[in-house]
Amino acid sequence: MVSIDLNSDMGESFGAYALGDDEGMLGYVTSANVACGWHAGDPMVMARVVASAKRHGVAVGAHPGYPDLMGFGRRPMKLSSEEITNYMKYQIGALMAFAQSEGMRLQHVAPHGALGNLCQYDMEASRAICAAVAQIDASIMVYFCAGAVLGVAAEEMGLRAVSEIFADRAYMDDLSLAPRSMPGAMITDEETAIRRCVKMIREGKVTTVTGKEVAIAGDTLCIHGDGPKALPFAKSIREAFASEGILVARP
Amino acid sequence: MVSIDLNSDMGESFGAYALGDDEGMLGYVTSANVACGWHAGDPMVMARVVASAKRHGVAVGAHPGYPDLMGFGRRPMKLSSEEITNYMKYQIGALMAFAQSEGMRLQHVAPHGALGNLCQYDMEASRAICAAVAQIDASIMVYFCAGAVLGVAAEEMGLRAVSEIFADRAYMDDLSLAPRSMPGAMITDEETAIRRCVKMIREGKVTTVTGKEVAIAGDTLCIHGDGPKALPFAKSIREAFASEGILVARP
Amino acid sequence: MVSIDLNSDMGESFGAYALGDDEGMLGYVTSANVACGWHAGDPMVMARVVASAKRHGVAVGAHPGYPDLMGFGRRPMKLSSEEITNYMKYQIGALMAFAQSEGMRLQHVAPHGALGNLCQYDMEASRAICAAVAQIDASIMVYFCAGAVLGVAAEEMGLRAVSEIFADRAYMDDLSLAPRSMPGAMITDEETAIRRCVKMIREGKVTTVTGKEVAIAGDTLCIHGDGPKALPFAKSIREAFASEGILVARP
Amino acid sequence: MVSIDLNSDMGESFGAYALGDDEGMLGYVTSANVACGWHAGDPMVMARVVASAKRHGVAVGAHPGYPDLMGFGRRPMKLSSEEITNYMKYQIGALMAFAQSEGMRLQHVAPHGALGNLCQYDMEASRAICAAVAQIDASIMVYFCAGAVLGVAAEEMGLRAVSEIFADRAYMDDLSLAPRSMPGAMITDEETAIRRCVKMIREGKVTTVTGKEVAIAGDTLCIHGDGPKALPFAKSIREAFASEGILVARP
Repeated sequence: MVSIDLNSDMGESFGAYALGDDEGMLGYVTSANVACGWHAGDPMVMARVVASAKRHGVAVGAHPGYPDLMGFGRRPMKLSSEEITNYMKYQIGALMAFAQSEGMRLQHVAPHGALGNLCQYDMEASRAICAAVAQIDASIMVYFCAGAVLGVAAEEMGLRAVSEIFADRAYMDDLSLAPRSMPGAMITDEETAIRRCVKMIREGKVTTVTGKEVAIAGDTLCIHGDGPKALPFAKSIREAFASEGILVARP
Repeated sequence: MVSIDLNSDMGESFGAYALGDDEGMLGYVTSANVACGWHAGDPMVMARVVASAKRHGVAVGAHPGYPDLMGFGRRPMKLSSEEITNYMKYQIGALMAFAQSEGMRLQHVAPHGALGNLCQYDMEASRAICAAVAQIDASIMVYFCAGAVLGVAAEEMGLRAVSEIFADRAYMDDLSLAPRSMPGAMITDEETAIRRCVKMIREGKVTTVTGKEVAIAGDTLCIHGDGPKALPFAKSIREAFASEGILVARP
Repeated sequence: MVSIDLNSDMGESFGAYALGDDEGMLGYVTSANVACGWHAGDPMVMARVVASAKRHGVAVGAHPGYPDLMGFGRRPMKLSSEEITNYMKYQIGALMAFAQSEGMRLQHVAPHGALGNLCQYDMEASRAICAAVAQIDASIMVYFCAGAVLGVAAEEMGLRAVSEIFADRAYMDDLSLAPRSMPGAMITDEETAIRRCVKMIREGKVTTVTGKEVAIAGDTLCIHGDGPKALPFAKSIREAFASEGILVARP
Repeated sequence: MVSIDLNSDMGESFGAYALGDDEGMLGYVTSANVACGWHAGDPMVMARVVASAKRHGVAVGAHPGYPDLMGFGRRPMKLSSEEITNYMKYQIGALMAFAQSEGMRLQHVAPHGALGNLCQYDMEASRAICAAVAQIDASIMVYFCAGAVLGVAAEEMGLRAVSEIFADRAYMDDLSLAPRSMPGAMITDEETAIRRCVKMIREGKVTTVTGKEVAIAGDTLCIHGDGPKALPFAKSIREAFASEGILVARP
């Protein structure tokens, strides 16, 4: 039976600022990517999300980003490899404390935003991230966007690499995500999105922005937790997967 | 044979800003209190200090503080117990990642600055700090200023409490530190400071600002790493302890 | 004809985090208290709010707070007078740049959150705030909560002090606001709130939490811009004032 | 008589962290580039430096940078033009408040670090910076590194552009500064540095790293305030200029 992990970015609220419906999404996903206080999130939010993930039986992973709260980690910054490694360690460790407090272990690390985008093609940055994971705890998996060199770097270092696909994003021919500024970059129609997901999972194929069919491997599917349609979409996709005989489970 | 741990605050540099001579001090102390990036320190500094501590055979502990880099964690802030617990977890976890990367474990937690001062008398804050330690890893010790309720809170929760005394600070009758603004608060004469230390360690007594002799228990002695006299003082105190037959060792 | 200024806190969004409906509120108020990037707000938000205030003919003032984004400036911090003065200057100046860019001048300064609460009774902090205003530009008014010593400090320094009353908050007998934790602290019924406002403005009296009638002077009325009822309430109060013959105008 | 402005970066201390000898340098320079709290500096430091500049009769200008205290503004960040303009306004405004408090006006703006480097060739970023200056106060000058497009952008917008040369840095053929990693990038020999300065000022020529002689226009000379040789060098260069008949004065 074919199986897929469902993940979502969480814990991106900060202080008085609320973002996303973490509690709601935890009812649908199997893995949570928890922000670590640099691009978003704070210790109160982290504690709350991790405790709630435990109650829901959802695995937690770190979602570390650039030191840029004002830009939500979405703005490229030029960091050295050593800086990337140490910034990752700091954030992963911070989340580890909350996981350990709940008797949980971190399942994975999934870099956020502009740092995540960099891992599409930058082998040095990818190795810097994987070095942090390998040095802290080599049993932690690395989530990488299907096609990204981050997956190669992770396997090079003996880490388990988990290929991530996106429910609501259009793909370029090289499997990079279509930039948000491109028309059609976001798949907004629920049915279309679900049909694409099922095809990626069952057939290992996706239709790119140029109309080509390209092979894609998906171990985990990312769905988004913000916006009014997030929860209904999560519910629909779980139902679609159930009726398609796709098992939803951690990687 | 009487024995004492020698500790010092470290890793308080930040980005382009250097503070203290960590490398030098690591040649003299047995335990390092490493700043965790909130009142001071950053991931590059933490990585460097922890790696160097390992090379020197020095144990590392977390030195967490208020979220106030601009005030160096020295300004009282009113936080809830839950905030204190989660802020501690975040910082302790962050440092844990660097320790784990070096194959080390955190030996202790020693709260910094205004948060540390609060633990002199505030049982609720003290419990909030100890809860963080106990929930992450109950084998981590808690350093508390001799006489502070933090020691009581730690023992209440089954944690090992380590009583800290200061080489260069004058004491009030209740064993709180004389405020820096008070004349004579800092013991600047090296010989006087050393004589006081030996007396505290050997006889368990200190002469307070009022001239009284008060009982004081010291498991660990804090020496400071900033200022031009820091290294020579560290050297002198090690020599004095050697000639006095006081063993310097981790708690 | 009796007249009142209507003000609201604005510009409290930050980066990817949205808070309040500034654009909507600017259609109802005559003065905007704009956050300055320390407890909330950022330069993009400030630019947007100030430009929009200009289009709506609304006066802008600075709403400076503690350096505590994570706590939204609501947590007391112990700062020296000199720190308060300089922190105020920094934030007021930052906003001044955006006002000047639009050909506007800052009309007023209204301290935020825990700093604002401190000004209820702390003369030293109040003077520190007023010193910043007086030294930058003595034509800038100071908004103070009715009954707060901040008003006294402002007048002492020759600044124009504007007494602020609240539409949706209950008052203690000494005119301090009932703490949010107290039942009934927030006046949630629209009609009650409006009736209280009209009474405060027309008769200069308010019924406190103990049932007493106490004299209160209101030059400006604060209404809140967050929550789903904010805009409808703003509309209702403007209509009520219109029908009561209360003119809404800047102080 | 040929004349040159002497400038130096200042106010780069932060909280407990001291950097540079501002007080000493103010005895030698005619213009101070004051950090504005983003890459370095804080309100206490800004207040102190501006007040001291006034006592010394030194003009003050803003030295704004990226929002990256941990990286001292030296790491490239990808910002939009609108972000650059608003980030500049914020920082310039903040410093303006301290200048106004001392009865001074800002003389100039000189972008810092990686943002300054960007202005060597990036016209869009340069225009974004100049837009901030022009919109706040078009009488404020723009300091640009000799050869940088920032000078062109400033003149395009009707601002006064002041060409800056460096006493201790080697030049590439295109007048960009030799990267610090290149051997010989820093001119460490005092006599050599002074001879180069005199030649740049008197003859308008500099010998680049390739040995070529290239035309260079210098209205202001930047000397650095950190390191043990900073003050002696400042003294020597003033003496050299005096004996060479080069007048040191604001632009």
